Amino acid sequence: MRICDLISKKKKGGALTFEEQHALIDGFVQGAVPDYQIAAFLMAVCFQGMTPEEPASFTQVLIESGDTLDLSALGCPTVDKHSTGGVGDKTTLIAAPLAAACGCTVAKMSGRGLGYTGGTIDKLESIQGFRTDLQNDLFFDLLRQNHLAITAQTGHLVPGDKKLYALRDVTATVDCLPLIASSVMSKKIAAGSSAIVLDVKYGSGAFMKTVKDAVALAQTMVDIGRRAGRKTTALITSMEEPLGYAVGNALEVSEAAATLKGQGPADLKTLSLALAAEMCALSENISRKEAQKRVQQALDSGEGLQKLEAMIRLQGGDPTNLETKLPTASLAQPVYAVEDGYLSRLDTEEIGRIAGLLGAGRAKKDDVPDPAAGLILSKKCGDAVKAGEVLATLYTNRPDKLQEAQKAYLAACTFSKEKPRLSPLIAAWVDEDGVHPADEPLA
Amino acid sequence: MRICDLISKKKKGGALTFEEQHALIDGFVQGAVPDYQIAAFLMAVCFQGMTPEEPASFTQVLIESGDTLDLSALGCPTVDKHSTGGVGDKTTLIAAPLAAACGCTVAKMSGRGLGYTGGTIDKLESIQGFRTDLQNDLFFDLLRQNHLAITAQTGHLVPGDKKLYALRDVTATVDCLPLIASSVMSKKIAAGSSAIVLDVKYGSGAFMKTVKDAVALAQTMVDIGRRAGRKTTALITSMEEPLGYAVGNALEVSEAAATLKGQGPADLKTLSLALAAEMCALSENISRKEAQKRVQQALDSGEGLQKLEAMIRLQGGDPTNLETKLPTASLAQPVYAVEDGYLSRLDTEEIGRIAGLLGAGRAKKDDVPDPAAGLILSKKCGDAVKAGEVLATLYTNRPDKLQEAQKAYLAACTFSKEKPRLSPLIAAWVDEDGVHPADEPLA
Repeated sequence: MRICDLISKKKKGGALTFEEQHALIDGFVQGAVPDYQIAAFLMAVCFQGMTPEEPASFTQVLIESGDTLDLSALGCPTVDKHSTGGVGDKTTLIAAPLAAACGCTVAKMSGRGLGYTGGTIDKLESIQGFRTDLQNDLFFDLLRQNHLAITAQTGHLVPGDKKLYALRDVTATVDCLPLIASSVMSKKIAAGSSAIVLDVKYGSGAFMKTVKDAVALAQTMVDIGRRAGRKTTALITSMEEPLGYAVGNALEVSEAAATLKGQGPADLKTLSLALAAEMCALSENISRKEAQKRVQQALDSGEGLQKLEAMIRLQGGDPTNLETKLPTASLAQPVYAVEDGYLSRLDTEEIGRIAGLLGAGRAKKDDVPDPAAGLILSKKCGDAVKAGEVLATLYTNRPDKLQEAQKAYLAACTFSKEKPRLSPLIAAWVDEDGVHPADEPLA
Repeated sequence: MRICDLISKKKKGGALTFEEQHALIDGFVQGAVPDYQIAAFLMAVCFQGMTPEEPASFTQVLIESGDTLDLSALGCPTVDKHSTGGVGDKTTLIAAPLAAACGCTVAKMSGRGLGYTGGTIDKLESIQGFRTDLQNDLFFDLLRQNHLAITAQTGHLVPGDKKLYALRDVTATVDCLPLIASSVMSKKIAAGSSAIVLDVKYGSGAFMKTVKDAVALAQTMVDIGRRAGRKTTALITSMEEPLGYAVGNALEVSEAAATLKGQGPADLKTLSLALAAEMCALSENISRKEAQKRVQQALDSGEGLQKLEAMIRLQGGDPTNLETKLPTASLAQPVYAVEDGYLSRLDTEEIGRIAGLLGAGRAKKDDVPDPAAGLILSKKCGDAVKAGEVLATLYTNRPDKLQEAQKAYLAACTFSKEKPRLSPLIAAWVDEDGVHPADEPLA
C-alpha cells in the first residue's frame, strides 16, 4: 500500500477502507508516514469529504492510536457531555451536577480551551486547589462516591488526534466536517462513557455558522457514536450571542454556581436543564419528559448545587462561599452605549477574541489563562439600550489592552430601531432516527 | 503574512499575489516554511487551480529561487525546445541539428528522464565519451562554434522547482495543470533562450489524455512565456503510440541519426521537421513557410546530420559510423501476434513501462539506465497484422524480465477487424494569438 496512492484515491473522491486509514494514521503517529503526506491527504478530505462510512472507521483508527478508558468496572451506565465550543458556555458546570443528582454517573474528560477563552478544565482551575489531573484510580473512586468527576484528558488518550489536530491547525484544514466530527468523537468514545450528549453550536460564535451546517455535523457525530455502540444525541443550540452574561473562567464559575442556586440567566438555565435532561434520559433509559421533571427537581431542591460542591471538595477545592473566593481582576471598565436602539446582533466570535485579549484564553498551547479576566454583559440581543447605558463590563489585569477591548466591544454590537427577531436557543435535536424540531421533545 | 492564511486563501479559491507566492516558495527553499504546509497548498491548487495571472508569477518565483543563464553575450537570438514527454520521443536529436543547420542557435539544457524511459541527456550518454556536464564557458564556446550544444541542467537552476517536484511526487500533486506549466516554463526561461518551442503531447502515453487538456496546458505555458518576454509556441502532438519505432536510449539515437540521413519513420520525420521549422520561424523571425523550406533543405542536403555529428564530436563522442558503436543488448526477443487484424490501439504508457522493465529508465533518481535496453516496434497503429508476425522486438540484459515484458507487450496491443481511424500526429498549434488547427500553418 503506497501512501501516495491513498492520497490520490481520496483526491479523486474515493473512499478509504479501515485498513487504508489505519496505514495512514498509524504510520503518521509512529513517524513512518511523513507529515507532508498527511497534510496533502487532509486537504484532499477538505475538498472531497468522506463517504457516510468513512468517519466512523476513521474515528476508530484514531482511538486505536492510544489508550482507552474502560468504565465497565463501575457497573452502571455512564454519560458524557460535549460542546463544540462557544463563548460563555459553562453548561457543563451546571448540567453535569444536575444529571449526577438524578442518579447518572457523569465521567467527564475535558480538554483545555484552544481558542480565545478557556475550556471546562480552565474554568475549574480558577477555583483554588481544584485538581484536574486525576489518576484513573482516583477518578473511579470519585465516580463511585459522588457520581461526578471531571478530569483533564491525558496525552495517552487518542494521541493520533492530538498530532493530527496540531497539523490541521497549521495547514488550513481545521474547518472540515468529517475531520471535526471524528476528532471530537474519538475523544468521547475513548473516554469510555456509554452515552454521549452533544451540544452542537451554530451562529456567529460557532464553527458552524448556520443551523443547517450544525445539523450536518451533528448527524455525522451521532452516526459515529451509533456505529461505536454508544447512545448519542445532539442538541443544536445558538451561539449567536454568549451564553448567559459571564465570559471568562472565574466569572463563569460564579455564574454557574448562581444558576444552580436558581438565580442564573434564563438562556443558560434553559439550555443546562435541557442538556441535563438529555443526559438523564439517555443514561437512565427514561422518557425525556420524566428526565426533564427530575432535573428540574434537582435544581429546585438544591441537590444539583450540592453535587457541584461535593465535586469541588473531593477534587481539592473549598466550595464554601465559592463566589467570594474566586480570583478578581484589578481593573473593571464599563463599555457605554453611544446610541439608542435595540441590540440586534453581537459578533460572538469577536467577543471571545476580546475576552482573550483581556487575558481569559491562550494564544499558544503553553499560555496560562488569567482566571480573573473576562467580561460581563449587561445587555443581550433584543434588549433596548439608551446611549450612556452600560453594555458590558471588562475585567482584566492588562491595563494596556483596555482601550482596544472597549473599542472592539462597541464594534461587535449592532443596533436596530426595530426589536430584532431572535434566533432560537435550541434549534433542533438530532438522534439516531434523524433531526427533530426543538419543540417536539423538549417543550 | 501567515503561511496558514495563504493556504486558506488558495483553499477558498483566491489568487495569491507575487509577494505571497514568493513568501511561500522562498520560505520553502530556505527551509523556513515546512514541507507539510507546501503539501497542503499544492493539494489546494489541484482543486482550485490558478487564475490566469498566477502561473506566470509563480514561474517567476521559481526562477528567482536560483541562478539564470544569460545568453545575450552570444549576440544572437537563441531557441530552445521542450517536449512534455512521451515514449520514443527523440525529436530533439533531429529537430535541434536541423534548426542549427538553418542558422538558429540552439542552446538546450535538458533534464534526465524521471519516468520509465530516458530523457535527451540519457539518450546522448549512450554515445561513448559524450559529455553532458558542460561548464558555462564551454557551453558558450560550443554555441559560438557550432550553434548547437546540449547540456544537463545543473542544480543551481530553479532549485525551487526541483524541491517542489520532489514533494509533488510523493503527495499525489504531480497531475495539476498550472503546476506542470510553471515547472516546465521556469526551467526553460531560466535557461535563457529568447524563443521556446513546446511539444505538448496528448494521448495514451502522455500526461494529458485528450487534445483539449493538452491545448489547455499549452495555452498556460505559452502565456507564461509571453509574460516573461519569450517568443513561445506549442505544437499539440500525438502520443497515442510511440514516436517512430525505437524506444530506449541507444536505439533512439540510432533512429534519430537514420532520420537525419533521410531514412527515418514517417511520423518521426514529419514531427521533427515541424518542430525544427517552428524553432526556425520563431528564432529567425521568418514565415513558417520559409522556415519549412529551409529545414527540408537542411535535411535533404545532409547539413542537419553534419550538425549532429559536429555536436557529438565537440562534446567528446565519435560520430563516425555511429550506429555500429552504440551499445547493444545481450538478448533480443521478438513478440509475435497471436491473432489477425488491424493494430488499432497501443497502450503507450504501458509500452514505456515495459521499456523501463527491460532496463531503459530509472525507478529512482539515482538509478542508471541501461543504454542498450528497449524495444523496436515492427507494427504501429493502423497496420494489418497476421498471427505469427512480429509485433515488436525486445532488447535487454535482464533475462528474468523477458517473459513478463513479452506478455505485457501483447496485452498493450488492441486489434480490430476494421482499419482504425488514426488520431492526428499534429492536432493543433498554440501561439500568443490562440489555438490554430494543425493544417492551417503547417500544411
